[in-house]
Amino acid sequence: MKSLEDLVARLSRLPGIGKKSALRIAYYILRADESYAAGLSAAVARLRSGVRNCPDCGNYTEETPCSICRDPARDAGLLCVVEQPQDVAALEATGEFSGLYHVLMGALSPLDGVGPRELTIGKLMERVRIHGVREVILATNPTVEGDTTALYIIKLLEPMGVKVSRLALGLPVGGDLEYADRLTLARSLRGRTVVGG
Amino acid sequence: MKSLEDLVARLSRLPGIGKKSALRIAYYILRADESYAAGLSAAVARLRSGVRNCPDCGNYTEETPCSICRDPARDAGLLCVVEQPQDVAALEATGEFSGLYHVLMGALSPLDGVGPRELTIGKLMERVRIHGVREVILATNPTVEGDTTALYIIKLLEPMGVKVSRLALGLPVGGDLEYADRLTLARSLRGRTVVGG
Repeated sequence: MKSLEDLVARLSRLPGIGKKSALRIAYYILRADESYAAGLSAAVARLRSGVRNCPDCGNYTEETPCSICRDPARDAGLLCVVEQPQDVAALEATGEFSGLYHVLMGALSPLDGVGPRELTIGKLMERVRIHGVREVILATNPTVEGDTTALYIIKLLEPMGVKVSRLALGLPVGGDLEYADRLTLARSLRGRTVVGG
Repeated sequence: MKSLEDLVARLSRLPGIGKKSALRIAYYILRADESYAAGLSAAVARLRSGVRNCPDCGNYTEETPCSICRDPARDAGLLCVVEQPQDVAALEATGEFSGLYHVLMGALSPLDGVGPRELTIGKLMERVRIHGVREVILATNPTVEGDTTALYIIKLLEPMGVKVSRLALGLPVGGDLEYADRLTLARSLRGRTVVGG
């Protein structure tokens, strides 16, 4: 059946979906009531046509600029730099951050052909310069690429006299010391916080 | 973002997709080129409108009757009874079966309100009676429901003098004896085949 094979091929491209899961999903769609398939099809189309990147910060949004950039209650002097738009959602879910975001649209990775020009680093410098940013929080991933990107940005920000910070590294909350990897445990030791005495 | 939440809610209904995977999939669709989202959306819609159940055997098909029922080279005297249309695809992939299929559209499960009338058992009897079927292979799942369904059909077929068989139970090929469950191992012992002497 061509329409089944076609859908399975497209679904298999999705993250975490292999050929077997794609087939299971296709069969589920066949068995479900017709309104489900119609709704799913429309929702996929609507997502791609309705959502774009905020011209200011790069976050995903249905309106321009995004709801965070438009919010007068947010602290424009505090800028949190992330790699991907979905990182904004993760940080917003914590309810701990009241500043604005800047999405780099990736991380430096020379081997993959991602240099500073492929990212929104120029735009970041412009925002810091023009909008009187006090502190830049570098919330890139704790990976080789994320660390390289952070170091690169730190160098660029140095002459601008702006405070720069990075996210703390350590044990995940609810995690088990026994199962923590060596590097994480080492970082959590080095970054230990005094709680008494 | 409403369109993101809407898609995530719909994707979360799919088998094997939790809220986190749904979100990852939605972000992937956002990042992918626009033609991918359009293609996926169209493929979902096309699947549901283009594929129906074969009026003869119940298999999924884009044409009526399905390609198996239309094939004059298939042995109409041999009928393989399965629970779901996707079981037909699994059996066809073996290349071992040259007869026709009959899809029951489920298995007997009184607690879930599935009785003989909810399945295509009446239609099965009619096919056996009219088309001179020599052998019925009961390929229902080796579960309580599948076994109950098979027993029920065996009782109905008894007075019709047709040969009835079930799929062999045993170790899966490539499986490890050490990790086989007790019941499977017991069945593979009981059903052992003589290979020499």
